[in-house]
Amino acid sequence: MQAVDRPKLEKRDLEEAAERLKNWGKWGPDDELGTLNYTAPDDIVKAAQLVRKGKVFSLALNLDNKGPQAGKTKFPPVGRFNPVHTMLRTGTDAYSGVLDVRGIRSADDLVILPSQCATHWDGLGHIFYGDHMWNGYDCRTVSSFGAAKAGIEKTKEKMVGRGVLLDVARFAGVERLPDGFAITNDMLTACEAAQGTSVGRGDYLLIRTGQIESHLASGNWDGYPGGDAPGLAFETLDWLQAKEIAALATDTWGVEVRPNESVEGINQPWHWICIPIMGLTMGEIFKLDELAKDCDGDKTYDFMFVAPALPVTGAVGSAVNPLAIR
Amino acid sequence: MQAVDRPKLEKRDLEEAAERLKNWGKWGPDDELGTLNYTAPDDIVKAAQLVRKGKVFSLALNLDNKGPQAGKTKFPPVGRFNPVHTMLRTGTDAYSGVLDVRGIRSADDLVILPSQCATHWDGLGHIFYGDHMWNGYDCRTVSSFGAAKAGIEKTKEKMVGRGVLLDVARFAGVERLPDGFAITNDMLTACEAAQGTSVGRGDYLLIRTGQIESHLASGNWDGYPGGDAPGLAFETLDWLQAKEIAALATDTWGVEVRPNESVEGINQPWHWICIPIMGLTMGEIFKLDELAKDCDGDKTYDFMFVAPALPVTGAVGSAVNPLAIR
Amino acid sequence: MQAVDRPKLEKRDLEEAAERLKNWGKWGPDDELGTLNYTAPDDIVKAAQLVRKGKVFSLALNLDNKGPQAGKTKFPPVGRFNPVHTMLRTGTDAYSGVLDVRGIRSADDLVILPSQCATHWDGLGHIFYGDHMWNGYDCRTVSSFGAAKAGIEKTKEKMVGRGVLLDVARFAGVERLPDGFAITNDMLTACEAAQGTSVGRGDYLLIRTGQIESHLASGNWDGYPGGDAPGLAFETLDWLQAKEIAALATDTWGVEVRPNESVEGINQPWHWICIPIMGLTMGEIFKLDELAKDCDGDKTYDFMFVAPALPVTGAVGSAVNPLAIR
Amino acid sequence: MQAVDRPKLEKRDLEEAAERLKNWGKWGPDDELGTLNYTAPDDIVKAAQLVRKGKVFSLALNLDNKGPQAGKTKFPPVGRFNPVHTMLRTGTDAYSGVLDVRGIRSADDLVILPSQCATHWDGLGHIFYGDHMWNGYDCRTVSSFGAAKAGIEKTKEKMVGRGVLLDVARFAGVERLPDGFAITNDMLTACEAAQGTSVGRGDYLLIRTGQIESHLASGNWDGYPGGDAPGLAFETLDWLQAKEIAALATDTWGVEVRPNESVEGINQPWHWICIPIMGLTMGEIFKLDELAKDCDGDKTYDFMFVAPALPVTGAVGSAVNPLAIR
Repeated sequence: MQAVDRPKLEKRDLEEAAERLKNWGKWGPDDELGTLNYTAPDDIVKAAQLVRKGKVFSLALNLDNKGPQAGKTKFPPVGRFNPVHTMLRTGTDAYSGVLDVRGIRSADDLVILPSQCATHWDGLGHIFYGDHMWNGYDCRTVSSFGAAKAGIEKTKEKMVGRGVLLDVARFAGVERLPDGFAITNDMLTACEAAQGTSVGRGDYLLIRTGQIESHLASGNWDGYPGGDAPGLAFETLDWLQAKEIAALATDTWGVEVRPNESVEGINQPWHWICIPIMGLTMGEIFKLDELAKDCDGDKTYDFMFVAPALPVTGAVGSAVNPLAIR
Repeated sequence: MQAVDRPKLEKRDLEEAAERLKNWGKWGPDDELGTLNYTAPDDIVKAAQLVRKGKVFSLALNLDNKGPQAGKTKFPPVGRFNPVHTMLRTGTDAYSGVLDVRGIRSADDLVILPSQCATHWDGLGHIFYGDHMWNGYDCRTVSSFGAAKAGIEKTKEKMVGRGVLLDVARFAGVERLPDGFAITNDMLTACEAAQGTSVGRGDYLLIRTGQIESHLASGNWDGYPGGDAPGLAFETLDWLQAKEIAALATDTWGVEVRPNESVEGINQPWHWICIPIMGLTMGEIFKLDELAKDCDGDKTYDFMFVAPALPVTGAVGSAVNPLAIR
Repeated sequence: MQAVDRPKLEKRDLEEAAERLKNWGKWGPDDELGTLNYTAPDDIVKAAQLVRKGKVFSLALNLDNKGPQAGKTKFPPVGRFNPVHTMLRTGTDAYSGVLDVRGIRSADDLVILPSQCATHWDGLGHIFYGDHMWNGYDCRTVSSFGAAKAGIEKTKEKMVGRGVLLDVARFAGVERLPDGFAITNDMLTACEAAQGTSVGRGDYLLIRTGQIESHLASGNWDGYPGGDAPGLAFETLDWLQAKEIAALATDTWGVEVRPNESVEGINQPWHWICIPIMGLTMGEIFKLDELAKDCDGDKTYDFMFVAPALPVTGAVGSAVNPLAIR
Repeated sequence: MQAVDRPKLEKRDLEEAAERLKNWGKWGPDDELGTLNYTAPDDIVKAAQLVRKGKVFSLALNLDNKGPQAGKTKFPPVGRFNPVHTMLRTGTDAYSGVLDVRGIRSADDLVILPSQCATHWDGLGHIFYGDHMWNGYDCRTVSSFGAAKAGIEKTKEKMVGRGVLLDVARFAGVERLPDGFAITNDMLTACEAAQGTSVGRGDYLLIRTGQIESHLASGNWDGYPGGDAPGLAFETLDWLQAKEIAALATDTWGVEVRPNESVEGINQPWHWICIPIMGLTMGEIFKLDELAKDCDGDKTYDFMFVAPALPVTGAVGSAVNPLAIR
C-alpha cells in the first residue's frame, strides 16, 4: 500500500484550489461558522437516535505535563507547551487547618492552557490565506486583542451531530499508517464502502491513522508535534467539500500528510485551503482507539458526536473533551 | 413567598447530616465518581431520545475579562480571577509578513484559566469534610501535586444523561428569587408537580433562580461571587439523596442559599455534605435563561444533557461548556 | 502655580519634534540601548562614591493583587492585570507529610506577571512611531515572537549609574501635584536650582509628583492606571535631550501629563517621541516617597541608582525593584 | 584532587548540625531576614568603594524557553518550567493599523515565571526543617496563600553589599569541577588564601564550579536540573556560619554536592540546615564566567554586589538579575 507519487504542489496549485473551493459568502457576508452550518436540526435529532448502547467514549488526551508538546520536533511549536496545572488551595491546606478561618475546607485550581496543546479544535481564525481569513475577512481581524470575527466562542452551540469514523488504519490492515502516507480520495471512498458507512452532509468525520496510539504506547512524543505523519492528501479537500461535512478530526498532530506534498516554503498546504477558504473546522490529536475498537465490534461506524469548545472570547481554537456516544 | 425561619445550623447538625447521608463505600472503596455512577447506559439511551427538535443550548458564559470574578465580594475569592486570553501568533503577524518564513500564516492562543472562574463543575476533590474527602479518602490526597484521587479527569466519560430543569423562579412567579431565599424540599416537589416533571435516578438536575440574569442584564457582577444569593436550603440534601440524581447545577455562584443557614464560622454548610459526604458533583454559574424559555414554550422540562469536563489531570474542577440538547 | 496654556499638539507638532530630536544612528546602526549609552564607566565609579550612609531604598511596589491594575480606568489596559502568585509546593504540604517521599520539605512558587503591571521599565520596543521603532528598526521587529531588536534583555548590564531626584511636588510646596498639571522646562530648571542639584549626562533622573502616594494612602487605585495625572509637558523632551540623561522615571502611571496636551486621536504624545525617536528608556509607577524624605533630610538629591531589568528575552518591558543607594 | 570519603550523613547528623547551627531568635522573635541582617550600613558604603572601573556584570541567564528546565532530570522539578513570554500587543499590530484607534502604537508583554526556573534567590520560606521554617515559625505559615512570614518581598531593600568570588574551579586548575565533587572547608580556606581574598561578615559570597559553563557551551541542559553536580560539602555550613556571610550563590542548580553526602531518603541535606536553621539566603544558577575572568585579570575578587529580588508578596523565591559592579 503506497501513496501515489505526484508532482509537488506549488503556489499555483493552491491558488487553483482556493478558487475552486472557496465558500466565502455561501452563508452570508457575516458568517462566522463555515461548514458547521451544514448540520441541520434534523441531523441532530437523527444523530441522537444513534445512541443505542448508552456508551460514552472520550476522545481526549488528559491535560497534563505528559502531553505531546514534550516531544522533540522539526517544526518548532512557537509558544505551545504542555498545560500547567497549579493549585490555588489544597487538601494539605485543609489538613493544616489554615483554611478554617474561612469556615470551609476547599481546594481550587488554575490551568495555563495553550488552546492547541493537546486534543483541540482549530477555529476558523487559526489559518489565513494571504491577507484573508474565513469568509474573506481581513486577517487583521485576528490581532493581539483576539479574533473579532469567527472566535471559537461563536461555535458554542455547535459541535453536535452525527459522528462517523473512517478507520483507515484498520481498513488498510495495519496498526498504524506509516509516516508520509497520504490518504487519497479513493481510499476514503473504499474505506466507506468496506465499512458500509456513508459520510453525509452535516456529519462530523473522524479519521483514524493509528499514529497517536504508537506514541501513547511508548510514552514518547518525539516526532509527533510538527513531525512526519500519515494524513490526508491535498486532493481530499475536494472530497470533503463534496461531502458537505460539518467538521473533521484525526488522531494526528496536523490532519494532513507530512512531509507535506508541497514544494519547500509551503507548509501544511491542505490547511491553507481547508480553514480560511472552505471554512471547515478541524480537530487534531483526537484519541480514537477505544471508539474504533467498539465500532469494529459491532461493525457500526456512526454515533452521536458532542464536542463543545470552551467559549473563550476571541480564541482561535479550544482544548476539548470530545465525546462519541453510542 | 417566604423561606421558613429555622434555628441556625450548628456543627452538630452537619455531623448528623454527614452520618445520615454518607455514601462512602457505596460504589466500592476505590470509587472516584460518586453519584455520577447513578446514570446507567440505558439512561443515556433514553436521554438521547429526548432530542426532538435538534436545538442546542449552551449553558456557559463566555470566558473573558467581563466575567463574574470582576464583581466585588464579601467572601474574597482566594486566587480566582477572570480568565486571561493572550495570543501566541496573530493575523497581524500574518499581515506583517513575519510568519512567512514558516510557510504558513496561522494564529494561536493561550488561556490562563482558574477552573472555577465562570461556568464550571466542582469536582469531588473540591470540598473536604474534616480531614476527609469523597469516599473517605484522606484530604491530603489533594496536595500541590493535584488530586491523586477523584481528579476531574476521572469524569471524562461522564456528564452525559437526562437533564431536567426545575425553573423555580418561574414557578414562584418572579423574574429572580431574592437573595437569601432558601429553596426548600416542598418547593422542589411543588415545582416538579407544577411542571409535570419527575426528577429521577441518574438525572442531571438544573435549578434556575434567575439570579445570574439580573447580573448579565446590568453588566455588573458586584455581589455575585461570594455574595448573598437565593439557593438550596440545607434540607434539600436529603431530597437530592432520595432522588439519586447524578449531578446538579444552578445559575448562582454557589448553589446554596446565602447568607447561609448556619451559625458564624460555618460557611457553605450544604457544600460540606454534598461533595465529600454524598459524592454529588455540582455545577455553578450555569446560564439557564434561554433553555428555560424554550422549556416553558413547550412545557417540557427534560432534555439530553452533555457537559464534558476538560480532563485536566488532578484538577478539582473544570470550566465547561454544558449543552442541553432538545 | 499653573501650567501655561498652549494650543493643543497636532500631528505636525509631533513630526517636528521627531525631526528635531531623532537619535537614530547616533550609536550606530545596530544600537539597541539608546540613551542608556550615555552612562560611561567613569559615571558608574562616581555614582558609587555617592554611597555615604549605606542606606538602601526600594522604589518598587510589592507585586500582588492589591496593585494599580485593580483601579478603574478611562483608558482600558489591554491585557495588563495585577500579578498572580501561586504556590507550586507549600509548607502545608510539608506539614501534611506529602513531600517526604522527595526527601526534602520545600515550597516553590510561580508568578504570572504582566511586565508593566506595577513598578517597571518601558523598554525601547514598547512604543512605535509610525512603522518604526527605536533606531529606525521596522516596527514588525516586535512580533508575537517578541522583540528581535532592543529586547529588555539587552539592558541587563545597564541601569546602573548616578540617580538624581527632582522632587517637583516638594519644590512646588504641595503634597502632590494636581491631575492635569504639566511640569515645564522652567520648572525642572528651577527645581534643580532650588535643590542645588545638577542633572547631567548619563544620569538616571527620577521625578516626584506625589501622585502615587495619595493612592497608596487611600488604598484605592481608581483613576491611576490610564487616568488623569500630573506629569511632564511635551516640551520637556527637548530639556531631557539636552541633558543627555540615561533614563528617567516617575511615580505616575505614564510619566507625561494627562489629560494629554494633544488633540483627540493622539494619546501620550510625549511617549511617541521619547522612546522610539530619542531612545530614552523610562520607568513608571516608581515609589519615591521614602527616598524623597531622606533626600530632603540631608538636602542631597543624588545617589547611586541600580535597577536591573529581568532579562526576559524579547520583552518590551520589565517589572523591576529599583534601588537608590545613599 | 579528590573529595575525602566520609560516612554518609544520617538523620542524626542533621539533628546535631541543626542544634549546633540554629540561629533562631538571634535577630529577635519576629525576624524575617536571617543572615541578610549581617550586612551593616557601613559594609554597603565600603562595598561601593570597590567600584573602580565602572564595569557591570550581569550574573543572570536570559529568561526564555532555552533555560535549564528543558534539561532531563533524575529529580523531577515538580512544577518548574522554563519561563513563558507572550505578547499582549505587538509591532505587527502597530504595522497593521489596529492600534491606531487607541491613539498610540505600543507593545506590551506578559511573563509566566516559576520563581526558581533560572537565576534566582531561594527565600527563607523555601525550605522547612521538620514542621518549622526560619526562626522557628510553623511551616504552615507558608500555605497556598503564600508565605505570611519571610516572603521574598521582605528582602526588597537587602541584597546589596560586598560581593566576593571564590573561583574554586580556577583554583583547582580545571575548567569545571567534576560532578560529585564536594568542596570542603579546607578548600574554601585555601582558595581564599590563594586569591588573597578574605570572606567577611555581611559579604555576599559567590562560588564558581564552572558547571553551568559546560551546559551553556553545549546548549544542552540534560542533567543540570536536579542532577549530579559539584558543590559544597555539608561541613561548609560551619565554615559559612563562622564567616557570618549575608548570603551565597553558586553557578549550579542546587549549591551543594550531588549525589548528596547523605543516606537514601535525605535529599539536599545542606539545604535542610542552611535555610530554615541558619537563615541563610542562597542563590542558584548564577552565571559567573565573565565576572571570574575579569577578577582573574586584575587578581581582585571583591566588588559591589546588587541583586534585588522582585518583591512578590508572599513568594518563597525570586528570579533575579544579579549585578557585580567593579
